[in-house]
Amino acid sequence: MTYRDTSAGELTAADAGRTVQLAGWAQRIRDQGGVMFIDLRDASGIVQIVVDPAVHPAAVDLRREFCISVTGEVAPRPAGSENPDLATGGVEVAVSALAVLATARPLPFQLDERTEVDELFRLQYRYLDMRRPGVAANLRARSAAVAAMRRTLNAAGFLDVETPTLIKSTPEGARDVLVPSRLQKGDFYALPQSPQLFKQLLMIGGIERYYQIARCYRDEDFRSDRQLEFSQLDIEGSFWGRDDVLATIEAVMVEVARDVRGVELTTPFPRLTYHESMDRYGTDKPDLRFEMAIEDLTDLFSSTEFKAFAGAVEAGGVIRGLNVGPAGLSRAGLDALVDDAKAAGAGGLVWMVVEDDGSLRSPVAKFLSENELADLTGALSGSPGDLLLLVADRWRIAVEVLGRFRVRFGSPDGHDELNFLWVVDFPVFEETAGGDLVAAHHPFSAPVDVAEMESSPATAIAQAYDLVLNGSELGSGSVRIHDPATQEKVFEILGISPDEAERRFGWFVEALGFGTPPHAGFAVGIARLVSILQGEPNIREVIPFPKTQTGVDPLTGSPSPVDDYQLMELGIDLRPDVRAARLAAEESGGDQPEGS
Amino acid sequence: MTYRDTSAGELTAADAGRTVQLAGWAQRIRDQGGVMFIDLRDASGIVQIVVDPAVHPAAVDLRREFCISVTGEVAPRPAGSENPDLATGGVEVAVSALAVLATARPLPFQLDERTEVDELFRLQYRYLDMRRPGVAANLRARSAAVAAMRRTLNAAGFLDVETPTLIKSTPEGARDVLVPSRLQKGDFYALPQSPQLFKQLLMIGGIERYYQIARCYRDEDFRSDRQLEFSQLDIEGSFWGRDDVLATIEAVMVEVARDVRGVELTTPFPRLTYHESMDRYGTDKPDLRFEMAIEDLTDLFSSTEFKAFAGAVEAGGVIRGLNVGPAGLSRAGLDALVDDAKAAGAGGLVWMVVEDDGSLRSPVAKFLSENELADLTGALSGSPGDLLLLVADRWRIAVEVLGRFRVRFGSPDGHDELNFLWVVDFPVFEETAGGDLVAAHHPFSAPVDVAEMESSPATAIAQAYDLVLNGSELGSGSVRIHDPATQEKVFEILGISPDEAERRFGWFVEALGFGTPPHAGFAVGIARLVSILQGEPNIREVIPFPKTQTGVDPLTGSPSPVDDYQLMELGIDLRPDVRAARLAAEESGGDQPEGS
Repeated sequence: MTYRDTSAGELTAADAGRTVQLAGWAQRIRDQGGVMFIDLRDASGIVQIVVDPAVHPAAVDLRREFCISVTGEVAPRPAGSENPDLATGGVEVAVSALAVLATARPLPFQLDERTEVDELFRLQYRYLDMRRPGVAANLRARSAAVAAMRRTLNAAGFLDVETPTLIKSTPEGARDVLVPSRLQKGDFYALPQSPQLFKQLLMIGGIERYYQIARCYRDEDFRSDRQLEFSQLDIEGSFWGRDDVLATIEAVMVEVARDVRGVELTTPFPRLTYHESMDRYGTDKPDLRFEMAIEDLTDLFSSTEFKAFAGAVEAGGVIRGLNVGPAGLSRAGLDALVDDAKAAGAGGLVWMVVEDDGSLRSPVAKFLSENELADLTGALSGSPGDLLLLVADRWRIAVEVLGRFRVRFGSPDGHDELNFLWVVDFPVFEETAGGDLVAAHHPFSAPVDVAEMESSPATAIAQAYDLVLNGSELGSGSVRIHDPATQEKVFEILGISPDEAERRFGWFVEALGFGTPPHAGFAVGIARLVSILQGEPNIREVIPFPKTQTGVDPLTGSPSPVDDYQLMELGIDLRPDVRAARLAAEESGGDQPEGS
Repeated sequence: MTYRDTSAGELTAADAGRTVQLAGWAQRIRDQGGVMFIDLRDASGIVQIVVDPAVHPAAVDLRREFCISVTGEVAPRPAGSENPDLATGGVEVAVSALAVLATARPLPFQLDERTEVDELFRLQYRYLDMRRPGVAANLRARSAAVAAMRRTLNAAGFLDVETPTLIKSTPEGARDVLVPSRLQKGDFYALPQSPQLFKQLLMIGGIERYYQIARCYRDEDFRSDRQLEFSQLDIEGSFWGRDDVLATIEAVMVEVARDVRGVELTTPFPRLTYHESMDRYGTDKPDLRFEMAIEDLTDLFSSTEFKAFAGAVEAGGVIRGLNVGPAGLSRAGLDALVDDAKAAGAGGLVWMVVEDDGSLRSPVAKFLSENELADLTGALSGSPGDLLLLVADRWRIAVEVLGRFRVRFGSPDGHDELNFLWVVDFPVFEETAGGDLVAAHHPFSAPVDVAEMESSPATAIAQAYDLVLNGSELGSGSVRIHDPATQEKVFEILGISPDEAERRFGWFVEALGFGTPPHAGFAVGIARLVSILQGEPNIREVIPFPKTQTGVDPLTGSPSPVDDYQLMELGIDLRPDVRAARLAAEESGGDQPEGS
C-alpha cells in the first residue's frame, strides 16, 4: 500500500497541475461551510488542502492530529489568499480522495509553539511534544551534528569502535550506576562514566585513531543540566600530542557549525591557559563574546590606608576589580550584591558607581584617597553610570566571585554568536577543602613534567585542556600517561594505596607495560553542544526522551517496581527499610514515589 | 612533539631517498652482528628498518613490541633481499635516529596469526590480541560497515535519534537487565532489549524516518553466539509498508557489502514465505548457497504397506525426504543419524544409500515396493553414492529434522559467497508446548488481516519478515500495529489481562491513540553481519571487548563485588544465601567465582 508520493513541505507553484498523494496530520481545520481548509503537516512541512465535505463526508469528523492520506491536484491559491508565512503558502491541494489512517483523541495541550506547557506535562506526552516545531528541529539538528562528526572523523581515518557498557566498577568522582549480575550472583557491573580506560586499551591495542558516540552514565544528584545518561563524542589518538587533538576537534566543530548553523568558524580557536582564564575572567570556561576582564588592583592599593584592602594583601591576598558597566541598580540592589559575594565565599565586596562628574559613589569611598579613587576609575575605565566591583581576598576567591558577576552582568542572551576557545594547561591536581589532592581532570592525564609533579604536586601543570563555547564547557581531554611508573606515581600522590591501586586498576597498569604508545584524546558532550547551537537554555530540549531531575521518565513511569522473583534471580533483595517504606506508601493509598 | 610524519605501510619504491619519521612497534628483531633488521609495525602496515647498534646503542635493548619512533632514509632493498610477502617489501629505512617511546614486558603469547591461543587468554590480553592482524581487520571491517549504514540512511533523509537505555522494565521474552535506582529506592530501570517502543513513539512523534545503531541487552543464559550486550542497526519509517522496509535494508546491505567485501549484491533479494522456507528447507533461515531441498513424498507413499509410513500419514503427518548427496558414512555413522533425529524430536529416520546399480540399501528397503523405491529414487534425484533421508512425522518435525541434516551435510565452509534472502509472512503467534499462544516476533507486529487473527489466531499471518544471510538470521522486522484496538486485541489473545496490559503497556496504548501513522521497521544485528562478512565463525571475533559465555570479562575482572555502602545507597542488599556463599568462598581461599 502507498500512503504518499510527495512530501507536503516541498510543494511550490511549479507543481501546479500535478496530482499528488500526501500523508500527514491535520494540524488546523477550518470549516467554512461547504468547503474545509486543512493544514496538512508532515515531517517536511505544511501545505493547505481543500476538501468538499459533501464529496468526502469523512472530513466532517476530522479532528486535530488525525493522521490522513489524501490525493489531489496542486493549484495556485486564489489571489489574495496566499500565506507568506508558509513555504508552500502559494499553493493548495484540491482533494479528490481522503482516507483517515488513524484518529486522535483530544490533545492534552496545543502543539503550537506559542502555548507554554509545563515541562513535566510535555515529557509525559513527549511524542506529542515532538510534533511541535521546536523539539522536531532540535532532533534534526542533533542528527545533523553527529553525522558531521562521524563524516569528518571517518574521512580522517578514525575507526568507530564500540566499547562495552557493562564494565568493572572503579568508583571515583561521580557514582557508578550499578547492574547486578545474574550469572555471577553478588557481583555487579557498572555502566561507564566514560569509555576512558577502554579507549586507552584500544591505543595499547594499536588502533591509533578511535572515535565513538558513547553513551555514558553518572549517578549524581541531578543538577538542572545533567542527566543520568548522556552521550559524548569520544576520541583518542596514538603518537599524538595536544595540538593534534585540538586540530582534530576544531575540524569537527567547523563541520558541525556549518551543517547545523550554516556558519564558517575561524580556526585555530583562541587559547588561554587555565591560569590566564581564571585570572582574567574568574572561571575556567569564560564566555568571550564579551571582554569585561577582571583587573588586578593590588599594586594600585599597595600603600592604601583602607584596612580591609591592606589587611587582605598583607595576608597574601589580592585586590581585583571589575567594571560591569551601567547596571542601574538601586542602593538595595547594590547591597544585595555584597550578600551574593559573601554567599559565594568572599569576605566582602566593594561596589562603586561612577557619577556623572566622574566621582565614585560608594560606602567605602571615604576611606580611599583621591589618588586611589582616580587611579581606580582609570584602571577600570570607569565612565559615568558604570558599576565597579572590587574584592580583596585570596586570589582564587577574588577572581571567582568577580567572575560570577561578570557572567551575571555581561552575558548576552541566546547564542547568535558562537565563541569557541581552548583553555589549556590545567593543573594535575586540585586541593580539596580538607587539603587532600584529587585529580583535577582524571588520574590518567599526563603531567607536563613528571619531576615537577613529584616535587610540587599542588601546582604541577597537566597536559589537559577544555573546549569552551559561549561560557559552557563542551568537553575536555588530555595527553595520557603512557608509562606504568608515572601512572603508579599519580595513584600514590592521590593517596591510593598500592593494594587499592592494584585492586581497582591493576589490570590497566599491567596493560600499560606492553609498549603503550604516547596517546591523547578528548570528549565532547553532545547535548550541551547541540543545545547551544540551537539556542536552547536546557539540554533536555535536545534529548529525545529526557528524564526529570530525579531520574523519572513521566512518559513510561520508569523507574518502577519489579517482581520479587526477578530480584531473587539476581541474588539481591530490597533492604527491609525500603520494603517497609514501599508497603506503607501503598497502604496509605499513595502511588509509588514520584518525586520530580 | 612529533612522533612520525609517515605511515609505515605506505612506503614504496617511489619514496626512495626520502627522509621519513616513523613510529610503531618492533614486531620482529633480527640482529645480524653489526646490523639489526627490525620489522616496524603501525596500524597501516609493516616496513623493515635497518639499525646500526654501534651508532644507536638503545637498539641493542629493543625487545618485541617495544614502541619506538625512528627517523631514516628510505632506500630500495639490496637485490635479492626483497620481501614479496610484504606490501613495503621492496624498501627499507636506514635509521639515523631512534627513540624508545615505551618498553614492553615479555608477551604472554605470540602475536602472529599462526599461533593458536586459548580464547580466554586472548580475552584477558585483548589489547595484545588486537595487535594481531585478524582482530584488527575485524574492527576495521565493523567500523566500515556501520559507516556505510549511516551514510546510506543519512543520504535517504533518516534521522539518527538516540533512545534512552535506562527504561521501564516490561518483562517478556528474554530477561531484562535491571538497574537499581538510587533516587527512587526500591525501583528499577531496565536496559533495553531493543528500542522497539521508543522508536514507535518517534513515529507517533512525526519523525517519519529514524535509525540508530542501538545498544541492546538480553540477560539470557549465554549461548555461544550471544552476548549480554549487543548492537543493532535499528530503523523505522512512517507511511511505510513492508516493501519500503525491504528496499531500504537492501540499499544498506549493498553499501555494506561493497565497502567491506568489495562485492556488488544483486537486488531485490529473493523472497520466500515462512511456510515455503520451512517446507522446503526445514528452517526459517535457510542457507541457499546450496539447494538440497526437502521433497514431499507423502503422495508417493499414499498406498504403502510400510506401517511406519502409513501410520504417520494416517495420524495427519507427512513423509519428507532429502538427498544429502554422497555422505560416505559407515553403517554405524548412518545409524547414529537415527539417534540424532530422535534427539531432535522425530519418531525415527529412514536412511537409504543409492548403490552403484541404482538400488537402495536401507534397513527398511524390504518393506517398500519396487515401484516405491524407484519413484523415491526419482523424486530425490538419487545417484549412486547418494544418501537419502526420510522422516514420516508431523509436518513441522519432519521438515525441521531434515532441515538440520540439510545444514549438516550441505553447508559450505566459510562465507566466500554471500547469499541474502528475505523470509516473509511469518505467523503472528506460535504455540508453546503447553498450547499457549506467544508472539512469534513481538506483540507489536501487525497481522495481515485483523479478522483472521481474531478467528484463527494460531494460523494468522503477520506482516513480519526476516533477513537471512548464509543461513543466519541477520535481523527481523514488521509492519507495526498502529491502532490501539488491534494492539489490545493482541494482548488479549496473548492472555495478558487488561489490568496487566494497562500496567505494562498502558502508556504505549495511550500514545497509539493520538493519530499514529502506519509504520514499519527492522533491526539488524551488527556483530552477526560483520562476523559473516569477515568469515568469522564466532561473533566475539568482531566485538572489541567481548565477554565470555558466563558474562565475565577476563581482562578487567567484571562483574565484581561492590562495597556495602554502595548497595545501601541503592536501597538493596545481597540475599543472605548469596552473601553466605561469598563469605564461604573467601574463607576457603577461593577467589570470587569466575566461571567462564
